[in-house]
Amino acid sequence: MKLDLSTLPRQVRVVEVGPRDGLQNEKVRVPTEQKIHFIRLLAEAGYSEIEVTSFVSPRAIPQLSDASEVMTGLRDLPAALRLTALVPNLKGMERALAAGLRSVAVFTAASDSFTRHNINATVAESLAQFRPVLALAQREGVRVRGYISTVFGCPYEGRVDPRRVLAVALELLEMGVAELSLGDTIGVATPNQVVEVLDLLLNEGGIPLERLAVHFHDTRGTALANVLAALQMGVSCVDSSAGGLGGCPYAPGASGNLATEDLLYLLHGMGIETGVSLEQVVRATRFIATVLDHPPTSKYYLAATAQTPCSES
Amino acid sequence: MKLDLSTLPRQVRVVEVGPRDGLQNEKVRVPTEQKIHFIRLLAEAGYSEIEVTSFVSPRAIPQLSDASEVMTGLRDLPAALRLTALVPNLKGMERALAAGLRSVAVFTAASDSFTRHNINATVAESLAQFRPVLALAQREGVRVRGYISTVFGCPYEGRVDPRRVLAVALELLEMGVAELSLGDTIGVATPNQVVEVLDLLLNEGGIPLERLAVHFHDTRGTALANVLAALQMGVSCVDSSAGGLGGCPYAPGASGNLATEDLLYLLHGMGIETGVSLEQVVRATRFIATVLDHPPTSKYYLAATAQTPCSES
Repeated sequence: MKLDLSTLPRQVRVVEVGPRDGLQNEKVRVPTEQKIHFIRLLAEAGYSEIEVTSFVSPRAIPQLSDASEVMTGLRDLPAALRLTALVPNLKGMERALAAGLRSVAVFTAASDSFTRHNINATVAESLAQFRPVLALAQREGVRVRGYISTVFGCPYEGRVDPRRVLAVALELLEMGVAELSLGDTIGVATPNQVVEVLDLLLNEGGIPLERLAVHFHDTRGTALANVLAALQMGVSCVDSSAGGLGGCPYAPGASGNLATEDLLYLLHGMGIETGVSLEQVVRATRFIATVLDHPPTSKYYLAATAQTPCSES
Repeated sequence: MKLDLSTLPRQVRVVEVGPRDGLQNEKVRVPTEQKIHFIRLLAEAGYSEIEVTSFVSPRAIPQLSDASEVMTGLRDLPAALRLTALVPNLKGMERALAAGLRSVAVFTAASDSFTRHNINATVAESLAQFRPVLALAQREGVRVRGYISTVFGCPYEGRVDPRRVLAVALELLEMGVAELSLGDTIGVATPNQVVEVLDLLLNEGGIPLERLAVHFHDTRGTALANVLAALQMGVSCVDSSAGGLGGCPYAPGASGNLATEDLLYLLHGMGIETGVSLEQVVRATRFIATVLDHPPTSKYYLAATAQTPCSES
């Protein structure tokens, strides 16, 4: 036997990013009340962390301009459930603190042309902008997650040098980021790249395994194969989006974020515990699907909710 | 580093099953001329084997009642390209021989309730029916591929004992089958099951690696993760269907066969040679898509043919 799966993590922490990363990339604008209801359904599924919104400029991303109102609607959720919000800068951080957040995320990339295009700054400039955010977070005892986008490829530059990823990762950790989420923003990664990047970060960079999460997009169908490779490298935190929310808005049926349902099906099938109820995630997706302008892209969801089950062929 | 991908096969043989397994499971009946054109486009992609049709009773599967006509339209394809057809019994075998086939496939399962439901016979009865088929094939020097369905789960029985798979596999090989294709017919497998079954067949059953192929369905999104596990176990023959043809007809967007495009993207990304042109497969899928009543389910195809590329999010 060449493949030994007994060394895989026995538990995986699934970070739900549907309400933020998902809805932000949907064309439809979801009313605040329905966002709150969606997040509350997700909370019932048993996650330990849900990324709920983003304190960005309402002009930049109008879909998330109701960040404070969303937080107000979630005030009574148990403190054991970590609610995280994205903050682009110090102003966003201050709004997040005012809204009661105890966990935030910052967002940069491994390629300058991507950050220039998205946030009109180089990677170095974006990191410099995070310094006061991290300092304030530290003073307030707030946990910070750091997203690195375009880890496995950039829409403008193509292949990204893993050493760029390592440099950005080390700088974020040095600033005080608690966890790094390595993003395959455009869904181009294959498992060999996952091994290459993780090997560099873990073995050459000396980054502890428990500081690393992976964030795959399923644009070309490789997300779960990449998850399997990451698990085999020891990673035990995976981001995903209920229903696959945030699919590519330009192609009907095309995929963006890895769907939580597909991830849970894989993990649970392999005997890996997540604490998250797959059935309850399907229920949350079924609710938000009524608001979207297209069916969810999760394959598990589509099979599970088919009128006649997809069983034979 | 815990995961060593350098031991993966350097070359993988991709067996294209779209024209048979795919079209058989599409609601739309494709005119013979368009089937022939589709297969000829696929042939240009560089496959070494394409399963083109099935010599089943026209009453059972009207979509494939033109098997002989399809073969006539492919007569001038190079002999190096192996064209395979499914034969359910001796009568089908005789028709296949008359149509000039030099490679056929037989089809059984690892669960009795599945074969009873599909071909009104137990697994043992189906195997008995193959004996004269295999004997005739041997006399004529025709290669026989053996499909085993429901290897990882049955729609009627649920979990399938891997020892049942081993017993069926050994009997097929003893009869003279050249290659076994292990089918996850309902798309329920997770990588641990792939490892378990392959370990049993290879190490306890003593079946040589080169006699095994895998045939995954992507119904719940796990097909490529299962391919990765199979590659890590040393398997180097994978079945797939251009565009993901043969999706679950009951749910819009739901998936059946693993899409060839997604498989090729994974394999080529990992530096594994297939000899098949991904671009040419996309071209073949684009053609057949004009005949179908739904978009293809291949994620790579959907991303590649989006009017605006799915790049950012």
